Amino acid sequence: MYMKKLTSQVVMTYDDPVADTKYGKVRGLKTDGTYIFRGIRYAKAKRFHMPEEPDKWEGVKGAYSFGYVCSELNTPIAHDNDTVQHFYYPQNEHCQYLNIWTQHLDKSAKRPVMVWLHGGGWFSGSSVELISYDGENLSAYGDVVVVSVNHRLNVLGYLDLSEYGEEYANSGNVGLADLVASLKWVKENIENFGGDPDNVTIFGQSGGGGKVAYLLQTPAADGLYHRGIIQSGGTFGHGGADEVRHCGEVSRLAAKRILERLHIAPENVKEIETVPWEDLAQATMEAIWLIREEDGEEVSWEPVYDGKYFMGDPVDMGYRKETIGTPMIIGTCFSEFAGTHDRNYDEQPKALWSEEKADAIIARTFGDKTARMNELFAKAYPDRQKQDLLFVDLRFRKPAMDYIKGFTAAGGKIWNYMFNLETPYNYGTTAWHNAEECYCFRNAAYLEYEYIPEVSEKLEDEVSGAWLAFAKNGDPNCAAIPAWPACTADSIPCICFDKVTDVRTDHDKELVGEYPEIEAPGFPLSSKMYAFYGVKPED
Amino acid sequence: MYMKKLTSQVVMTYDDPVADTKYGKVRGLKTDGTYIFRGIRYAKAKRFHMPEEPDKWEGVKGAYSFGYVCSELNTPIAHDNDTVQHFYYPQNEHCQYLNIWTQHLDKSAKRPVMVWLHGGGWFSGSSVELISYDGENLSAYGDVVVVSVNHRLNVLGYLDLSEYGEEYANSGNVGLADLVASLKWVKENIENFGGDPDNVTIFGQSGGGGKVAYLLQTPAADGLYHRGIIQSGGTFGHGGADEVRHCGEVSRLAAKRILERLHIAPENVKEIETVPWEDLAQATMEAIWLIREEDGEEVSWEPVYDGKYFMGDPVDMGYRKETIGTPMIIGTCFSEFAGTHDRNYDEQPKALWSEEKADAIIARTFGDKTARMNELFAKAYPDRQKQDLLFVDLRFRKPAMDYIKGFTAAGGKIWNYMFNLETPYNYGTTAWHNAEECYCFRNAAYLEYEYIPEVSEKLEDEVSGAWLAFAKNGDPNCAAIPAWPACTADSIPCICFDKVTDVRTDHDKELVGEYPEIEAPGFPLSSKMYAFYGVKPED
Repeated sequence: MYMKKLTSQVVMTYDDPVADTKYGKVRGLKTDGTYIFRGIRYAKAKRFHMPEEPDKWEGVKGAYSFGYVCSELNTPIAHDNDTVQHFYYPQNEHCQYLNIWTQHLDKSAKRPVMVWLHGGGWFSGSSVELISYDGENLSAYGDVVVVSVNHRLNVLGYLDLSEYGEEYANSGNVGLADLVASLKWVKENIENFGGDPDNVTIFGQSGGGGKVAYLLQTPAADGLYHRGIIQSGGTFGHGGADEVRHCGEVSRLAAKRILERLHIAPENVKEIETVPWEDLAQATMEAIWLIREEDGEEVSWEPVYDGKYFMGDPVDMGYRKETIGTPMIIGTCFSEFAGTHDRNYDEQPKALWSEEKADAIIARTFGDKTARMNELFAKAYPDRQKQDLLFVDLRFRKPAMDYIKGFTAAGGKIWNYMFNLETPYNYGTTAWHNAEECYCFRNAAYLEYEYIPEVSEKLEDEVSGAWLAFAKNGDPNCAAIPAWPACTADSIPCICFDKVTDVRTDHDKELVGEYPEIEAPGFPLSSKMYAFYGVKPED
Repeated sequence: MYMKKLTSQVVMTYDDPVADTKYGKVRGLKTDGTYIFRGIRYAKAKRFHMPEEPDKWEGVKGAYSFGYVCSELNTPIAHDNDTVQHFYYPQNEHCQYLNIWTQHLDKSAKRPVMVWLHGGGWFSGSSVELISYDGENLSAYGDVVVVSVNHRLNVLGYLDLSEYGEEYANSGNVGLADLVASLKWVKENIENFGGDPDNVTIFGQSGGGGKVAYLLQTPAADGLYHRGIIQSGGTFGHGGADEVRHCGEVSRLAAKRILERLHIAPENVKEIETVPWEDLAQATMEAIWLIREEDGEEVSWEPVYDGKYFMGDPVDMGYRKETIGTPMIIGTCFSEFAGTHDRNYDEQPKALWSEEKADAIIARTFGDKTARMNELFAKAYPDRQKQDLLFVDLRFRKPAMDYIKGFTAAGGKIWNYMFNLETPYNYGTTAWHNAEECYCFRNAAYLEYEYIPEVSEKLEDEVSGAWLAFAKNGDPNCAAIPAWPACTADSIPCICFDKVTDVRTDHDKELVGEYPEIEAPGFPLSSKMYAFYGVKPED
């Protein structure tokens, strides 16, 4: 019903709180007891170059407005605005800004720090893109310091130009390096905002979950964080080390094609640093298209494995022993992108289907596996409508299981969750990608389509309670939830957050194992995914 | 405290309301009794060409998300976000979309229609840019149909290419023609949304006020609206007919310079229709800069007088007899852009100044006119702090007086208001540009810096009450306000909306007449104004 702080303007007075940083003083604001600082620059960078320390300044700089968010290859109107509220903001490739919500400004407070890494793959999104991301309620309830960051995305962050000169040696990872720089800023400055630099939890959803996992694979980040939470994390496992190396080759091919599109000869590569962003974006979209059509390859903007700065997807390349001791939480939503599939089966919302209709559609979909799937589904989710079998997510759940398997095998400690709540959207919709975020941040009341009186408050206490306990102690167990054991090499106890929350061990192992490739037309991804598909060159 | 509908996502169900239009069916949503339709295309257009009717479509089109807003030459983070909340949205030059808030969907309802024209000069802004613009509360309270529109701005709307071919004869007015097209759509379709096509009020603020005034000077719009409200309207009076014609010359000079910057020869002018928007925007900014530096002229994007499609600024070119019978309201805010000037005088907020400090600063500022100005100010505004003399707006008040003078002289009927409320911002700030909007739309509670319990509700009843009475009857007088006479050729009765609202006749005539050019450093305009200043060409 209400959008509160993220989109509300600040009320600035001349006596707003001032905090010190290594680079100069910043003036924020205080609202309902929470100090808020928006748009603090944590680094600066030349295009395709590693981030550097920001410039120092004299006097007091205002930190009232969010900073620029990273330029996206394209920003259409998100088709899923009805389920995931987007907040658009001015874009600029110089986007190394962070935001802080805290209850204290004294060095002695030393509260746990939670750094939020936004989703949108590694190619889109921002720290203010979704209303759920507002940090005030989590900071106020948990007495923690919440930080959210913008960093370089897409071609700006992950184009491997290393073949064109030593100064671009790490251009394929500069967006990841921005994240490291933001954590370094937190390490060096967060004490002035009441935070404990020696207790930093990094958490993120979708691409942001992938960022958490990849930071553990980035030696430069060692010691800058202490726990990690992967929410519906970027899918892990590229199919082995060769495939990981191949991704690097594709990024280098993209560099070649983009330079061609821009008519920049290799010896003039430096020109790519100064071509207008819009021209670079256009050339990039065309290159993506050409590489698919002519080279039969798919460009996926993400950090480039080099065995030095970035050690690669852990499922493919192995988990680093230096970070395997990091306590972790990983989990997914019941449906993720399959959450609003029902229209693909029937014009009537799935929540209103009759038993007969549900049976007919399930039988039509699963054929001779129908009985077996019904049985496995009822076993895994006894409390759900039978038709929810059609909306089971595998795309994120399977990779999460793989991550857990490898992480535990390597000796790591990790907890698993599933967010199971059926939202009120369209009479009842299984939990989609992003659905759990407002419960981590205690912002459910801002989201008309998710909020359920009492249930939402209970779930906020459980989810944010567990996240906060984890941030404080490295263990999510707390009074708000049932006993939640960590995973082992051969079993996955999963806490299922729902109207009634419980812990189920290996509850969907068989279901996931035997779930067939069903015919349901794919749920359209956020229209931003178009940036993945590229555009046909005009000439 | 809260941002409600404008930024809140819609909750879509399969049984949302469907309405018919001349071009196809649209599915909107219903929330708290109000039907909302977002992003309905009312026209389509090729760049620099007149708008055409939109394409028809089969089936039901979703109208849940706002449409693209017009591309701006640049969209920096607004420096004044702390006093005027901006809501950013994806941009595209194909921006002919409108939004509707209504209580009825039956043809028989025939409720008054109020079409909102956004501000931002003729070069920036959108129908969803400010939280104040949300139409739900006004529609629900007044049982009227509220419509808001996007249309072409800046170089896209007002570049005079007429010297390059007949097909561009009206390119200097296509943005204005979009507005006409939106009113034509309302005329032909609003009945299906419970509206009365024969009772349409156009209202707008700042640039939007200028749009209202200029629509009265546009024959193609005759009969498409029936009353007009100019809020802090674009300044009127270019200095006479010759200056108006000169503005056209400058627009044609801009066309020449932009084509040069784009290396497009006159015979290839058609290429300017297909150059990427970003290149056109860059060339435009450079041309603006060159025209100032080398030609000593200032490009101001606005409709181009041609004596045919657009009859020009009425103060310079005369009021059209065809529209002089349109009932009008015109008014301004106490301070407009001078509203937050106090920092230019003292580090302490003006509301906290001691009598001595106020006297000293006033004496320093007005010199030997001090006594006289204090006297005239106390006479005009007996209830204000004496230092508010420093924050009197002339920039909008004087042109409004000129407009009234000409309009009444030509036989028109017009009412005058001033919005005088001191907001809670920074301990007390005189009413700035945009401050009255949330009272027209009854959205004050969304704006933390403006909302004053009880006072805001009272003012919403007065301001929106008068606007609604005017929309219904062509006369703003109603139970909520004191008797408010229309202006005459020689006197201006002004309703002063404030904690205590009253009507004062010619109260500030002497004050405005004798107010000197004071030294106060100018209040920085919204950083978007940078688009006015242009950028230095690199070559």
